[in-house]
Amino acid sequence: MLKIDLNSDLGESFGAYKIGMDADILQYVSSANVACGFHAGDPIVMEETVRLAKKAGAAVGAHPGYPDLQGFGRRNMICTPKEVKAYVKYQLGALLAFTRAAGIPLQHCKPHGALYNMAAKDKALAAAIAEAVADVDAGIILLGLAGSAMTEAGKEAGLRIAGEVFADRAYQADGSLVPRSMPGAVIHDMEEALSRTVRMVKEGIVTAVTGETVPLTADSICVHGDNPSALAFVKAIRERLETEGVSVVPLSVIV
Amino acid sequence: MLKIDLNSDLGESFGAYKIGMDADILQYVSSANVACGFHAGDPIVMEETVRLAKKAGAAVGAHPGYPDLQGFGRRNMICTPKEVKAYVKYQLGALLAFTRAAGIPLQHCKPHGALYNMAAKDKALAAAIAEAVADVDAGIILLGLAGSAMTEAGKEAGLRIAGEVFADRAYQADGSLVPRSMPGAVIHDMEEALSRTVRMVKEGIVTAVTGETVPLTADSICVHGDNPSALAFVKAIRERLETEGVSVVPLSVIV
Amino acid sequence: MLKIDLNSDLGESFGAYKIGMDADILQYVSSANVACGFHAGDPIVMEETVRLAKKAGAAVGAHPGYPDLQGFGRRNMICTPKEVKAYVKYQLGALLAFTRAAGIPLQHCKPHGALYNMAAKDKALAAAIAEAVADVDAGIILLGLAGSAMTEAGKEAGLRIAGEVFADRAYQADGSLVPRSMPGAVIHDMEEALSRTVRMVKEGIVTAVTGETVPLTADSICVHGDNPSALAFVKAIRERLETEGVSVVPLSVIV
Amino acid sequence: MLKIDLNSDLGESFGAYKIGMDADILQYVSSANVACGFHAGDPIVMEETVRLAKKAGAAVGAHPGYPDLQGFGRRNMICTPKEVKAYVKYQLGALLAFTRAAGIPLQHCKPHGALYNMAAKDKALAAAIAEAVADVDAGIILLGLAGSAMTEAGKEAGLRIAGEVFADRAYQADGSLVPRSMPGAVIHDMEEALSRTVRMVKEGIVTAVTGETVPLTADSICVHGDNPSALAFVKAIRERLETEGVSVVPLSVIV
Repeated sequence: MLKIDLNSDLGESFGAYKIGMDADILQYVSSANVACGFHAGDPIVMEETVRLAKKAGAAVGAHPGYPDLQGFGRRNMICTPKEVKAYVKYQLGALLAFTRAAGIPLQHCKPHGALYNMAAKDKALAAAIAEAVADVDAGIILLGLAGSAMTEAGKEAGLRIAGEVFADRAYQADGSLVPRSMPGAVIHDMEEALSRTVRMVKEGIVTAVTGETVPLTADSICVHGDNPSALAFVKAIRERLETEGVSVVPLSVIV
Repeated sequence: MLKIDLNSDLGESFGAYKIGMDADILQYVSSANVACGFHAGDPIVMEETVRLAKKAGAAVGAHPGYPDLQGFGRRNMICTPKEVKAYVKYQLGALLAFTRAAGIPLQHCKPHGALYNMAAKDKALAAAIAEAVADVDAGIILLGLAGSAMTEAGKEAGLRIAGEVFADRAYQADGSLVPRSMPGAVIHDMEEALSRTVRMVKEGIVTAVTGETVPLTADSICVHGDNPSALAFVKAIRERLETEGVSVVPLSVIV
Repeated sequence: MLKIDLNSDLGESFGAYKIGMDADILQYVSSANVACGFHAGDPIVMEETVRLAKKAGAAVGAHPGYPDLQGFGRRNMICTPKEVKAYVKYQLGALLAFTRAAGIPLQHCKPHGALYNMAAKDKALAAAIAEAVADVDAGIILLGLAGSAMTEAGKEAGLRIAGEVFADRAYQADGSLVPRSMPGAVIHDMEEALSRTVRMVKEGIVTAVTGETVPLTADSICVHGDNPSALAFVKAIRERLETEGVSVVPLSVIV
Repeated sequence: MLKIDLNSDLGESFGAYKIGMDADILQYVSSANVACGFHAGDPIVMEETVRLAKKAGAAVGAHPGYPDLQGFGRRNMICTPKEVKAYVKYQLGALLAFTRAAGIPLQHCKPHGALYNMAAKDKALAAAIAEAVADVDAGIILLGLAGSAMTEAGKEAGLRIAGEVFADRAYQADGSLVPRSMPGAVIHDMEEALSRTVRMVKEGIVTAVTGETVPLTADSICVHGDNPSALAFVKAIRERLETEGVSVVPLSVIV
């Protein structure tokens, strides 16, 4: 039976500040990317998110970002690979404390925001992240943009890697995402998004904005759950995949 | 042969800011308490401190503090036990990433500054810290003020505990330290400090400021190394102990 | 005509994190207490909040707090008066930049959360805050709990002071608030809250939980606006006051 | 009589962390660039630095940076002009509180580190900084790299501007600095640095690494004072300038 993982960024609240509908989204996703306190999240939030994920049966992964709470980790920062490597180790370890306390494994690591985007193209940055993961626990799966420098670096570091695809984003002919600043970057029609998702999962291909058929390795689909309509979308994706005979399971079952 | 541990707070630099003579002090101590990024330290500093400690043959422990970099963790903050527990877990995990990467164990945990002082007297806070340690790794030794609520809580949580004594501090009749705000709190005469240290280690007793003989469990002696004269003092303590037939070894050999 | 100020804590969002219904609440209050980046708020949020307040015709004041974003400034921190004085100056100045840029005065200063509560009782802390205000601009009104050490310190520093009362909080016989940890601390019945408010404003008295009639100097009423029902409450208070012939005006018109 | 300003970055300590020899350097410089808490400095340090500068007779300016304490403001961050504008306002205001309290003017604003370097070339960033200064107080002088986008933007914003030159840095033919990553970027020979400085001040020219004679507007010379040899260098520059008949005075006397 065909298998796919659904992952979502969770645990992004901070102190008195609440973001996301974590308990709801956890009903539908198989893997939770938990913020680790640099761009979002705090120790109380991390503990609670791990508890919720465990209860819902979702696997837990680290979602490390740049040390930029004010910018939510979405602003490029020019850090050295040495700095990035240490930042990723630190955040992995911090989350590891909570997964150990909860008696569950730390399944994967998926960089966040600007770090994710920069490491998808920058080999030195990608290598720093992959080495950080390997140094802390070589059993952790590295989740990154399918076919990017990030997953390539994971392979070179000897890690299990997983390629991520996006249900609601347009692709370019080279397999990269159409930048959000460009028209057509986001696919707003739910039916179209669902069809594309099924095709990526079942056939391993997507149609680029310029018409080409692009091959993609889809191990996991990234979904958002920070508002009611996003939640409805997640539910619809999960149902459609199951209807199509695709089983939604955590990454560790797939790669 | 009588054994004792010498511990020192290290890894307290932050970014461009340097504090301490870590490489020098590591020539003489057997256990390093490494700051974990809340009151001092950062990922780059933690990585480097673990490397230096490993190279010098000193054991590594976590030195978690309040989230107060501006106050260096020395200001009392009224946090709930739930908050403190999560903060300690987070910091333990963060350091664990670096000890795992270095292939050495995380030997112990010693709270820092205001957290140390408050947990020496506050049972709920002490329990929160002890439980955090037990949840992350029950093999980690909890190091706290000898005979305090902190070590008591460690016992109750099923941890190995270690009692810390101070070479250069005066004691009260109940075994607590004379507060720094009071006259005579600090012993400036090196010879007197050395004699007292030997007596605490060999006989398990110290003379209180009020004259009473106070029993103490001395598993580890806290030494400072942030200036040349402190470093000279550490060297002198180590030499005197060895002259007196006391072996300086990491905590894990003792408790 | 009788006059009263309605004040609310605003500008508490931070980066991607949103708190409060600032634009809505500004339709009803006459003074906005704007967070200054220590316990909440950031430069972008401060700029926007000042713009919204100016547009709505509400006066702007600073709402300085402890440097504790993770605890939203609600946790007691034991800082020295010297530290508190410098922290308040810094935050006052930071907001002053935005009021100057907007061409409006910085009307008042009201400490936040734990700083507010501690300074209501601690004379040294209250004096530190009052002196900070006087040092930055002696024309700024100091807003604090009516009849507290805070307003007393403001008088001694030569400042104009304003006493704040709470529409939905129970009072003790000495004029202090019933702590939130005690039963009956919050008045949930809107009609009762409205009646009490009118009586505090028109007669300068309130009935304590223990039955005594307590005199109060009510220059401003603190209202919350962080959820739809709180907003409805603010609207009701404003309407009731106006029905009772009380004019809602900024503090600078009153004291 | 020919006049020049000597400026230095001061107030860069933070909490328990000490950087710089501020009291010493203030004996020789005419303008102090005071860190404002984002990349360095804290309220206590700012207050003390303003006090020291006032005592030494040096003028005070703001030294705003990126919100990156861990990177000391030296790492490029991709912030929007709107963000940068708000960050600069906030920091200017924060320092303004301390200069007002001390009864001295806020003479100038000089961006720090990565912000300085980026704004020297990026017109939108430079305009954001200049507008922030103009919005807070149009009387504040904007100090930037001589002949850069920064000083150009200051002119367009209607500000008084001042061009900064470096005693110990090599220049390229277009008037920009030779990047530190290139050989010969820093001039280590003190006599050569002194001669170049005098020539820049008296003749308004410098010889580029490639041999060209480059015209420069030298209103202020940047000097460092974070170690004993830097301090000796500052003293030597001041003495040489005075020997050459150049008077060292604050920027406000010059532009």
